[in-house]
Amino acid sequence: MTEILQSETAPAGLSADALHASLGDVSMESMNLLNQIADTHPRAVSFAAGRPYEGFYDVDRLPEYLRAFCDHLRTERGMDEAEVARTLFQYGATKGIITSLVARSLAVDEGIEAGPGSVVVTVGCQEAMFLVLRALRADDREALLAPSPTYVGLTGAALLADLPVLPVRTRENGIDPDDLVERLRRARAGGLRVRACYVTPDFANPSGASMDLAARHRLLDIAAAEDLLLLEDNAYGLLGGTAGRLPTLKALDRRQRVVYLGSFAKTCMPGARVGYVVADQRITGGSGGGTLLADELSKIKSMLTVNTSPIAQALIGGKLLSHGCSLAEANRRETEVYRRNLRQVLDGLARRLGNVPGVEWNAPAGGFFVVLTVPFTVDDGLLEYAARRHGVLFTPMHHFYGASAGFRQLRLSVSMLTPDRIDEGLDRLAALVTERLAEHGAAGGPVPGGGS
Amino acid sequence: MTEILQSETAPAGLSADALHASLGDVSMESMNLLNQIADTHPRAVSFAAGRPYEGFYDVDRLPEYLRAFCDHLRTERGMDEAEVARTLFQYGATKGIITSLVARSLAVDEGIEAGPGSVVVTVGCQEAMFLVLRALRADDREALLAPSPTYVGLTGAALLADLPVLPVRTRENGIDPDDLVERLRRARAGGLRVRACYVTPDFANPSGASMDLAARHRLLDIAAAEDLLLLEDNAYGLLGGTAGRLPTLKALDRRQRVVYLGSFAKTCMPGARVGYVVADQRITGGSGGGTLLADELSKIKSMLTVNTSPIAQALIGGKLLSHGCSLAEANRRETEVYRRNLRQVLDGLARRLGNVPGVEWNAPAGGFFVVLTVPFTVDDGLLEYAARRHGVLFTPMHHFYGASAGFRQLRLSVSMLTPDRIDEGLDRLAALVTERLAEHGAAGGPVPGGGS
Repeated sequence: MTEILQSETAPAGLSADALHASLGDVSMESMNLLNQIADTHPRAVSFAAGRPYEGFYDVDRLPEYLRAFCDHLRTERGMDEAEVARTLFQYGATKGIITSLVARSLAVDEGIEAGPGSVVVTVGCQEAMFLVLRALRADDREALLAPSPTYVGLTGAALLADLPVLPVRTRENGIDPDDLVERLRRARAGGLRVRACYVTPDFANPSGASMDLAARHRLLDIAAAEDLLLLEDNAYGLLGGTAGRLPTLKALDRRQRVVYLGSFAKTCMPGARVGYVVADQRITGGSGGGTLLADELSKIKSMLTVNTSPIAQALIGGKLLSHGCSLAEANRRETEVYRRNLRQVLDGLARRLGNVPGVEWNAPAGGFFVVLTVPFTVDDGLLEYAARRHGVLFTPMHHFYGASAGFRQLRLSVSMLTPDRIDEGLDRLAALVTERLAEHGAAGGPVPGGGS
Repeated sequence: MTEILQSETAPAGLSADALHASLGDVSMESMNLLNQIADTHPRAVSFAAGRPYEGFYDVDRLPEYLRAFCDHLRTERGMDEAEVARTLFQYGATKGIITSLVARSLAVDEGIEAGPGSVVVTVGCQEAMFLVLRALRADDREALLAPSPTYVGLTGAALLADLPVLPVRTRENGIDPDDLVERLRRARAGGLRVRACYVTPDFANPSGASMDLAARHRLLDIAAAEDLLLLEDNAYGLLGGTAGRLPTLKALDRRQRVVYLGSFAKTCMPGARVGYVVADQRITGGSGGGTLLADELSKIKSMLTVNTSPIAQALIGGKLLSHGCSLAEANRRETEVYRRNLRQVLDGLARRLGNVPGVEWNAPAGGFFVVLTVPFTVDDGLLEYAARRHGVLFTPMHHFYGASAGFRQLRLSVSMLTPDRIDEGLDRLAALVTERLAEHGAAGGPVPGGGS
């Protein structure tokens, strides 16, 4: 060896433009940038983070959940102490150790009949999305349909799977079915293979929009007619209360068209990082012979995260068992908070900005999000200014459009705040809006001290 | 809508050959197939699973670890109860909440000086591998070097990242440096971009081989000269005892050539699913400007699993804190078990098969694995036969060669068994070997009732 290099410089191969393409995409930066602004202004009232209410979190609950799940292993599954310890501490089944509890809660809360074998427990819903997109991405011709605006996590998972996302128009009633068919046919005519459409029928992030029953049936019919899978994300459905709840796509699905993406982040706790996917579609051909899509997802998972932490699953399982496997039941108090907050934000907006020309917002019946439209530019510069000068945070909607649209909209998340903070935050937000309109008129203009 | 399809058949898009290519690869089936055979023969003595010893697992430890970590948050990080609860229950920093504890334990146990900012806590070492491979895969020209035989999880992660693996010869002393340089140059001459080589310097899975100090220095020099990153997997290094321990590549690395892949599965518990990566390489160019590779990995992680369960991290953090941040200290009893088991297996093989022509094995100084070479075919058919007729399980080595070699070798894992079971298992294994040699002679032959 004579060619020893003593240089202290970085390996030449690590220039930013020689890394995976996802790392250069604006969507991958969104979360970091938004978190940075939030971290710099910790005292600002935050309508930004789409996080669950944390007023009822209690560390003492964790050992109780573990105990409840261990009791279940002893009594319902007949395990001795060594088997209980092994179940929690060791590697476990790739699909998870709470698949039957998940299936039970889907039956109780959603009327979904899912065989435990069609469930894969994942590291949050985010991993579930990646597993499905990775499985469905056979080659460079593949593309995915998704509503625009859409959840940043879907965009990110698609980038990691090298899967282009084709945007579909969103209306007040959720994804636009005519535009969906139009986009699909145009993409297929252009040589693309499109096998799935991501959709959030209940209280979508970021739009807050929900689909009515007719729209759900229409979407299922389109999926069958066009040989399309629907990737249904239902992170918020249970949190609007039971009055007027509509069945999920999966509950209506009789033709195996729906892959159901589930999350326990909002209904149990984000800190367990447990979600799941229900994928009961049969795979044809291949060596497996009659395996389910869930089995294929499980194979991918085994090489991505091996299995979801059994201890984290035990916490979720314990919480489910403590509430008769009903998340609606487990979230009675939280649901009240979300409904109260949503009412307060909608009423507060009406009181403060009800008569301001060009300022409007939607009125979701539940979920975490309200979208406010204003007659001036909403970008990261405005957010930074709002945080610094007015002490209020929100999410500029362009982050959900891949920076291609949404520059007059902002997303307000209502989930984490107390009534006092909501009033304070709305006062600050109204002051910002009033100031912007007064200084620059209804046509908008550059942000003072802005940038971005 | 007139085109409604009432068929109950599977979506046409879900034929096995239209899924991601990884799902058709033999390596992705290995674990499933081996688990299936193991599940069918629960009473067999298993030298198959490379799992940690579970005799000391105790469910009551979990609340204690949580308590220790919460105390740390209160006293060392000055948090109040609401902040402690938020840290465990909510979403958290993408890089993790125990990066400084991980850094401290690396300093204590390995003499590695890692800044907490260069650490990303992952969902097991498996996610760490995928993050690195995904980041380094810029386009179709990319390839990765790895020893042959190699850990199935590496092969799987590379398949998911669409990254071809170029095999490098392994010798008794670990990866063959001359073959590495030869393969690298040939690949580059062929138009491939090769920026990394995966390597396990201590008690490799499956070979059990370890590199001596000179080989480690030589590998680091090659990495610098050839502008190569070394992806160092150190899942087993601490479990051989302190006598004769050699520094890891990362501890010797002065030129930022080593990305260190760490696991808490063997040293704490697999059930937490917590690992990490140390990636202190500077990224040049791009918008970030002077970010570390760890920051890029964190961006990918945010779209793959969001963050590693803070509760799972708290368990690991609590265990670290309970042992002065020394995993060597925390694993005193376990290390004794592994050393005792390894001695017993090596002595027991010598007693039973020491004089059998064509039968030999290596003698690792630590770790979980011994490789046995025999003069007859070792395939999944033989494994099934061994389980059924002799009640003993092992891992055919061809699984670590992508079914391209290794058909006369089997891997014995010594980690999980008690002394009684080891003796019983070795008796059964010796009976199988003797029977195979007697029935078919040293040249081997088809397995009775076999198939594979």
